[in-house]
Amino acid sequence: MIDRAESDLSVVALAGGVGGARLVDGLHRALPPGALTVVVNTGDDFEHWGLHISPDLDTVMYTLAGLSPEDRGWGIDGDTFRVLVEAERRGIDNWFQLGDRDLITHLSRTAALARGDSLTRVTADLCKTLGVDRPILPMADAPRPTRIVTQGGEDLVFQEWLVKLRAAPAVREVRHEGTCQTTGAVLDALTAADLIVVCPSNPYVSIDPILTLDGVSNLIRSTTAVAVSPILDGKAVKGPLATMLPQIGGREPSAESVAAHYEGLLDGYAVHHGDSFAGTLPLLETNILIQSSNDRLLFACELIEFARSL
Amino acid sequence: MIDRAESDLSVVALAGGVGGARLVDGLHRALPPGALTVVVNTGDDFEHWGLHISPDLDTVMYTLAGLSPEDRGWGIDGDTFRVLVEAERRGIDNWFQLGDRDLITHLSRTAALARGDSLTRVTADLCKTLGVDRPILPMADAPRPTRIVTQGGEDLVFQEWLVKLRAAPAVREVRHEGTCQTTGAVLDALTAADLIVVCPSNPYVSIDPILTLDGVSNLIRSTTAVAVSPILDGKAVKGPLATMLPQIGGREPSAESVAAHYEGLLDGYAVHHGDSFAGTLPLLETNILIQSSNDRLLFACELIEFARSL
Repeated sequence: MIDRAESDLSVVALAGGVGGARLVDGLHRALPPGALTVVVNTGDDFEHWGLHISPDLDTVMYTLAGLSPEDRGWGIDGDTFRVLVEAERRGIDNWFQLGDRDLITHLSRTAALARGDSLTRVTADLCKTLGVDRPILPMADAPRPTRIVTQGGEDLVFQEWLVKLRAAPAVREVRHEGTCQTTGAVLDALTAADLIVVCPSNPYVSIDPILTLDGVSNLIRSTTAVAVSPILDGKAVKGPLATMLPQIGGREPSAESVAAHYEGLLDGYAVHHGDSFAGTLPLLETNILIQSSNDRLLFACELIEFARSL
Repeated sequence: MIDRAESDLSVVALAGGVGGARLVDGLHRALPPGALTVVVNTGDDFEHWGLHISPDLDTVMYTLAGLSPEDRGWGIDGDTFRVLVEAERRGIDNWFQLGDRDLITHLSRTAALARGDSLTRVTADLCKTLGVDRPILPMADAPRPTRIVTQGGEDLVFQEWLVKLRAAPAVREVRHEGTCQTTGAVLDALTAADLIVVCPSNPYVSIDPILTLDGVSNLIRSTTAVAVSPILDGKAVKGPLATMLPQIGGREPSAESVAAHYEGLLDGYAVHHGDSFAGTLPLLETNILIQSSNDRLLFACELIEFARSL
């Protein structure tokens, strides 16, 4: 039972890429300043052109800065690709699309990390240059790369599998390498939280990397936690989740399967109209397709209301 | 006396920035394939946005690739500056102008150096992506940063003094830090050379960094060597040399002063019409203002003819 007044409410959202960013955008407008902290998956982080790329951090950051395109889940709206075209002209690896304006984010981050700044600090500094005033916390400062083991036995960097190979090779297993330590900032935020929101992101590659960090799951269990289904009517709004659920979990692609994946962690669950299922988990059945700015805000308000009722 | 036939001639040019690149462009068209090796100053190299920038290597490389603008001494003709504008928008250091197409050079170089490739190897690979088939050798693989000590006692990175401070602070001393070792490739090229050409570059900050590397001066003394004056009618075609000559050397800004600076190294010297001076050094007095493509080729032919006559 969340009995805090709106002005003192403390909400932590766990987010991956696009779906996470959209809900975070709604929450940040639905909640008073200071109420929201976003913890972002960095399992997708990888190196390209010698630059440290943090796809999910950037998607969340650009969304909160109002810079995200309507029509795609990455980069900056209206960005150009002069550098990328030059890379192509010179026969340099250009499978990962870096825009010209976007590039300065990766350049700044890489230089600051090389100087010894933590990813947490670097992210705060980047947010400042973009006018984003909500705390966005990387789930960890040390690398924790997500690897995709394919049915064929290949062991791939996540972005290579997702972008370069267009998520075509069937997945046998998702592995998390590197650190198991989250940061002090994340632990403090989770400890102080009245409500934890698991965003409609891919559980295997966006949320599990966060949940499997030391201490995180226990803090979620001891707090009111709600999730939003990333599956609507058997399909993922974006990304490869609908095919991964049967491949990895042996489960149907459904809202219920994702709830089963989070078993024991949640106090409530939001599903799309017609996606409800029987059981003891309290459900919010509503429009969870939050593409437009207005739908994001409306849904965020409904979700907070629902969480308060639990 | 150079008695080698044109087809077997081996010429090494020592080059800094613009003036060097222009003469190198003439020489590479005047000489048969395989005859020319360019040794380039890397004392200007520095780090910016976490990238390894090699201004002189790039100027020579872009000039030989036919990519240099007519109207300025750096970067790629017709390049855009989207990334730079974004840096400015975000309040990120943008005093060094990096173009969008130019940027891929610095990204590739930085990533390859981080992988452990030598600057010599990286430069060869970059030349390949640009279709440049003449060997361009960095003077050294390890850093040898040029520092400017001002009359006011400040000790500055060369590019900061030149570009950020527009070469305004008067110079007391030019220092060369870092390695004294050149590379095996440079020593081999100098040893095999029939003719060494000291390009019309700034002696203090473009040529001295090369000359003061172990073994280089001795190899130049034992070979036919000619220089081209970087001073015409008391003025430098580009850059701060005319003010540096009195500040550092206590010398007039003249072709003769530069020859005196190179005392003991040269077998011949090319000066502009009206800039000849008395003494024992053989002079070629001609048009050395080689801005147009045609003037570059004509002058290079004259210079080789002159060197053969020595």
